[in-house]
Amino acid sequence: MDPVLFAAPAAGVLALIFAYWKAGWVTKQDPGEGEMIEIADEIAIGAMAFLGREYRVIAMFVAGVAALLAAANMSGEARSPLIAVAFVGGAAASALAGFIGMRVATKANVRTTAAARHGIAQALQVAFSGGSVMGMSVVGLALLGLGGFYVAFTQVIFKDSLLTALNVLTGFSMGASSIALFARVGGGIYTKAADVGADLVGKVEAGLPEDDPRNPAVIADNVGDNVGDVAGMGADLFESFVGAIIGAMILGFGATCVAGGTGDLGPVVLPLAIAAAGTLASMLGTFVVKTKEGGNLQHALDMGAFGSAGIMVVVTFLLADMFWPEAGTALAGKEMVSAVDVGIATVIGLGVGVAVGMITSYYCSMDKPPVNAVADQSETGAATNIIAGLGLGMQSTALPILAIAAGVVGSAHFAGLYGVAIAALGMLSTTGIQLAVDAYGPVADNAGGIAEMSKQPPIVRERTDKLDAVGNTTAAIGKGFAIGSAAMTALALFAAFAQQANVTSIDITQPLVMAGVFVGGMLPFLFSSMAMKAVGEAAMEMITEVRRQFREIEGLLEGKVKPDTARCVDISTQAALKSMMMPGILAVSSPIAFGFLLGPEALGGMLAGVTVTGVCMAIFMSNAGGAWDNAKKSFEGGGHTTQKGALLAKGTDAHNAAVVGDTVGDPFKDTAGPSLNILVKLMSVVALVIAPLIANEVAAPAAGAPAPAAPPATAGN
Amino acid sequence: MDPVLFAAPAAGVLALIFAYWKAGWVTKQDPGEGEMIEIADEIAIGAMAFLGREYRVIAMFVAGVAALLAAANMSGEARSPLIAVAFVGGAAASALAGFIGMRVATKANVRTTAAARHGIAQALQVAFSGGSVMGMSVVGLALLGLGGFYVAFTQVIFKDSLLTALNVLTGFSMGASSIALFARVGGGIYTKAADVGADLVGKVEAGLPEDDPRNPAVIADNVGDNVGDVAGMGADLFESFVGAIIGAMILGFGATCVAGGTGDLGPVVLPLAIAAAGTLASMLGTFVVKTKEGGNLQHALDMGAFGSAGIMVVVTFLLADMFWPEAGTALAGKEMVSAVDVGIATVIGLGVGVAVGMITSYYCSMDKPPVNAVADQSETGAATNIIAGLGLGMQSTALPILAIAAGVVGSAHFAGLYGVAIAALGMLSTTGIQLAVDAYGPVADNAGGIAEMSKQPPIVRERTDKLDAVGNTTAAIGKGFAIGSAAMTALALFAAFAQQANVTSIDITQPLVMAGVFVGGMLPFLFSSMAMKAVGEAAMEMITEVRRQFREIEGLLEGKVKPDTARCVDISTQAALKSMMMPGILAVSSPIAFGFLLGPEALGGMLAGVTVTGVCMAIFMSNAGGAWDNAKKSFEGGGHTTQKGALLAKGTDAHNAAVVGDTVGDPFKDTAGPSLNILVKLMSVVALVIAPLIANEVAAPAAGAPAPAAPPATAGN
Repeated sequence: MDPVLFAAPAAGVLALIFAYWKAGWVTKQDPGEGEMIEIADEIAIGAMAFLGREYRVIAMFVAGVAALLAAANMSGEARSPLIAVAFVGGAAASALAGFIGMRVATKANVRTTAAARHGIAQALQVAFSGGSVMGMSVVGLALLGLGGFYVAFTQVIFKDSLLTALNVLTGFSMGASSIALFARVGGGIYTKAADVGADLVGKVEAGLPEDDPRNPAVIADNVGDNVGDVAGMGADLFESFVGAIIGAMILGFGATCVAGGTGDLGPVVLPLAIAAAGTLASMLGTFVVKTKEGGNLQHALDMGAFGSAGIMVVVTFLLADMFWPEAGTALAGKEMVSAVDVGIATVIGLGVGVAVGMITSYYCSMDKPPVNAVADQSETGAATNIIAGLGLGMQSTALPILAIAAGVVGSAHFAGLYGVAIAALGMLSTTGIQLAVDAYGPVADNAGGIAEMSKQPPIVRERTDKLDAVGNTTAAIGKGFAIGSAAMTALALFAAFAQQANVTSIDITQPLVMAGVFVGGMLPFLFSSMAMKAVGEAAMEMITEVRRQFREIEGLLEGKVKPDTARCVDISTQAALKSMMMPGILAVSSPIAFGFLLGPEALGGMLAGVTVTGVCMAIFMSNAGGAWDNAKKSFEGGGHTTQKGALLAKGTDAHNAAVVGDTVGDPFKDTAGPSLNILVKLMSVVALVIAPLIANEVAAPAAGAPAPAAPPATAGN
Repeated sequence: MDPVLFAAPAAGVLALIFAYWKAGWVTKQDPGEGEMIEIADEIAIGAMAFLGREYRVIAMFVAGVAALLAAANMSGEARSPLIAVAFVGGAAASALAGFIGMRVATKANVRTTAAARHGIAQALQVAFSGGSVMGMSVVGLALLGLGGFYVAFTQVIFKDSLLTALNVLTGFSMGASSIALFARVGGGIYTKAADVGADLVGKVEAGLPEDDPRNPAVIADNVGDNVGDVAGMGADLFESFVGAIIGAMILGFGATCVAGGTGDLGPVVLPLAIAAAGTLASMLGTFVVKTKEGGNLQHALDMGAFGSAGIMVVVTFLLADMFWPEAGTALAGKEMVSAVDVGIATVIGLGVGVAVGMITSYYCSMDKPPVNAVADQSETGAATNIIAGLGLGMQSTALPILAIAAGVVGSAHFAGLYGVAIAALGMLSTTGIQLAVDAYGPVADNAGGIAEMSKQPPIVRERTDKLDAVGNTTAAIGKGFAIGSAAMTALALFAAFAQQANVTSIDITQPLVMAGVFVGGMLPFLFSSMAMKAVGEAAMEMITEVRRQFREIEGLLEGKVKPDTARCVDISTQAALKSMMMPGILAVSSPIAFGFLLGPEALGGMLAGVTVTGVCMAIFMSNAGGAWDNAKKSFEGGGHTTQKGALLAKGTDAHNAAVVGDTVGDPFKDTAGPSLNILVKLMSVVALVIAPLIANEVAAPAAGAPAPAAPPATAGN
């Protein structure tokens, strides 16, 4: 057995040890005292309670799907019921990562508040450490699970058929996708129902400041930040990370291991190696994230993320050189691909990721022209603010899509469809630190909330606000990054599906494919509508409840009596659990129904349709929401100065109009938009999982036949 | 020369004579007196002035494109610079139809008001006659132009090459598309800038009723109804009608006239015959539209539209039997297709059109659950109303897309890709009466405005309101119908493009095609953002101007002084002319750039992308807008009763929230949404026009070689 096979699980274990160490450090920090601890406990208990209930619901879904998977794969060439085990493994690993990440995030929040009493540098350290536990848990469990299963399947269980091993491994990716779906949809509904309720009644109607303890929905809002932005984002990137690896592995298998191939395993193992190296680079990156008092926080975070990415640019070429067949190899879509070609394709992916992130950030940042224009349009009321935000969101799809399209063409130019998959992985190799930076945001946000609610001195809130502001920028970039990587991952999985289903051409001039493209293209709209509707209805319930409490609980608004926060937590929880099921079933059942009824080509058309509209809609909704959010924020503080020079202060009609926009944006950017990332990946991975079941017959013995089980020792140089 | 060739131009002439007769009848009706005439003149002058200025701008565009077309087709097999003549002809015919239709509509409006003083039956007669002039002008000029060019090209100019004749004929369709684009985008921006301005300041801020003469933007608003809903819708359906005919003709040519074909011209001529018959059926249908005092108006209109469609179901089979090769023929995608198969495919198209229209109507109708839910959500404010409307719009894409997908699969099952094209034509064969019913709406709307402004007795307004209410329902159905037919027409043109470009497969697993799908999928978002932004900015200017007039013109709000309506007309005009250019250039240049730079397969991917997201976005925006509109209306009159039984009256916060939603919906449903219909068709037709220039080489002598110039006499039985 080649020791290089253990690189991935070993890197995974290392990342988990790192996470454990960081978690221990966070726990040891000063949690403050009195009310601080009480509030933090309320948030932590609410978050863990929701996660527990959510997981119980998901467990039923997972059990049902696992049984179906096992039954459908009881017999048949290159199939095995063990796919159900891989599926449950993927689901469990993703769920566990979410659990660990949230647990630590809900400890880090109050400790960040406590640290902020002493200085911003310490507070950053605590908040970022909290985030990095999430980041490292995700990549650690992904690598350990995927790498471990790969070793077990290829070296022990399916020694004779690498194809079977890979087919079974797709179950892991599908398990991860299922968790991601529920985490994003459920978490997104939870957090936005609470947020909308807290904002509309608490802030607009009752005039309370953000995070005011008299607001009954404020605990639910803070819980929501954790279940939505920490656990949801974590599961999202877990899925992308795993999907990109598996997609590339399968395409690598197609390149060298099917009939006529050299049997060289390099292209199959390279993705695991890149992911493992990226995880190590991420760990290194976390050490760079520090700042002095008064230092530039954004710079500190950027140093970590870009530093890790920079390392990976170099390491990728080294790894490609190490694993890629020395003489080069032919790949689908390209006759001869060298190690350098593969390296370039990977770096192209990295570049596209950064580009999409930066463009997203431009469209959503305060003081940039797009957000300013939305703020300006608030002067004439909520309607023009909304029209402007919708227009901005639509416009903001253009450049990211061009970047993704260029990335597809460029990476395929160098390394065929394998290049597209490896580009997706290039984008995702440093997921560890990317996610640490992302998850830092809600920790800082929570810290601010706790500072406010526990009535800390203003300087504490000022410091957490600074952390939070940086968090918002990183969140915007992170969202763009999540969308870009989802698009590339979906394409990688799509290509892998076409290969595994023995589809030689998915021709859109064929009526069935056309129909598939149409129906697939419609699904993101239907899916988003479910999410929007769920948030709208839950928010309405929340609004009614908060209004009721203000009306009926005497002394609440005067601050003499505490609100019934548990009731609000319950409304969000119920709404999320109730409403996340249908979208989940839609996402899983559509590709299955299409694939079995109309064949793999029609399903391919459906995947193309869902990917293109899903990605466009995700960018549209995320960026519109982000812009509305910051347009509203630009009225706070000193007020917003329009292009024509008018100063519009907080509390004006224009500000109120901007609040309406922000509220509309909430389900856009935090529920429907991010859920679409999952939809496009999940549908592709479901297609990939069922590919062997609906595959076309092949005339020549190719992928369907037992693959040459080349000894792993041929991998590497 | 086969006399059957003259059927199409003859039917066109007949339709024009009918329109002339109807126009004369309308002109002869009582135009009322005094203030009525003054106001009507103001609207008519504003509308014609806008059309004149718009056409001058378009003329430059048309001249430029015509020159390019001529230059690009100076030489080359099966090409001719005469395509520029066909292009100018198509543009001129569409423009002329718009001119005639608007001219009569702006006469019919005040005459409808005058007739409403005597009774609703007479008022319906006048309004519908006005609409039918638009309907018959459109189909008349389309058939005369297209049929005339076809005769001239096939019988005189390109006697030896039917392929050349058809290639040149595509120019006519592109000319029609260009006018449609500007009419929809320009008209849409015009009408909504005025509408938003009139509503937000006049109604919400100043508390004036609809169409109050003190509102400075109210004339611009009424002008807008004409330029947007009459001229815009007319140009839209003109384009669909022509595009569906040409798409089917070219696919028919591919079926029988390329190498190996029988040379039978039946499949080429059949689309013209169906269109001609549909026009005659439409004329018959108009005679049925009448009602007694107190009769059911909706029923009267339905009788006309469904009656004509019913006739066509029968006639289609007769025509197919007459023109289709007796022995049947092989078509792309189907081995043997009989006349009955073709008839069935046509009727499937008709069915899909009706289905999409009905679904649209369900989602947008008052007192139906979707609209009621949006109205309910207004109780908690503008934000929840907007979220609900957006969710509804997204959800409403599902069934129409399923219907369209089923239509594609079904019609192709019976008659291959030719079946898809002929299905589109089946949907559009009765465009004459469909458009008459559509154009009736804005005439009735205007009549109400004139009644209000000229202070007619309440009974007059009540009657015009009844006419208007029916108009709104027909408008909703008409919009769905326009979208459905645009989708099918775009697919027909897409298939025709693939054939003419010698593309055997547009395989979405190819990276260039993938990139094409992505970029194409993004364009409707970019295009919509331009439209939304234009409306937002123009509306803001309008709002500022109306506020200024209320503030600065003393005695205006007391009704002692007249507002400066010309200034508002000017704002809308300027905004429309300024902002329509960029979307137009985007729509024309994208397929050209993609086709020449990346080849026909990448362009095919782009067309697929733009069609799927374009259609989804069009449905989403149209239906969200329609629902917001009627949600707002449900607060008027007796007030809206929520599901929980609360009665919310006019003027409550809930009603104001609904007004915000309606305002957001305005550019959605009347600017961006309908413009997308044009975008998808225009891009397909541009691709079809450049197809000979970017076509792949073919090994065997096929479409590229001179086609068998079978004598037309072989057509028919």
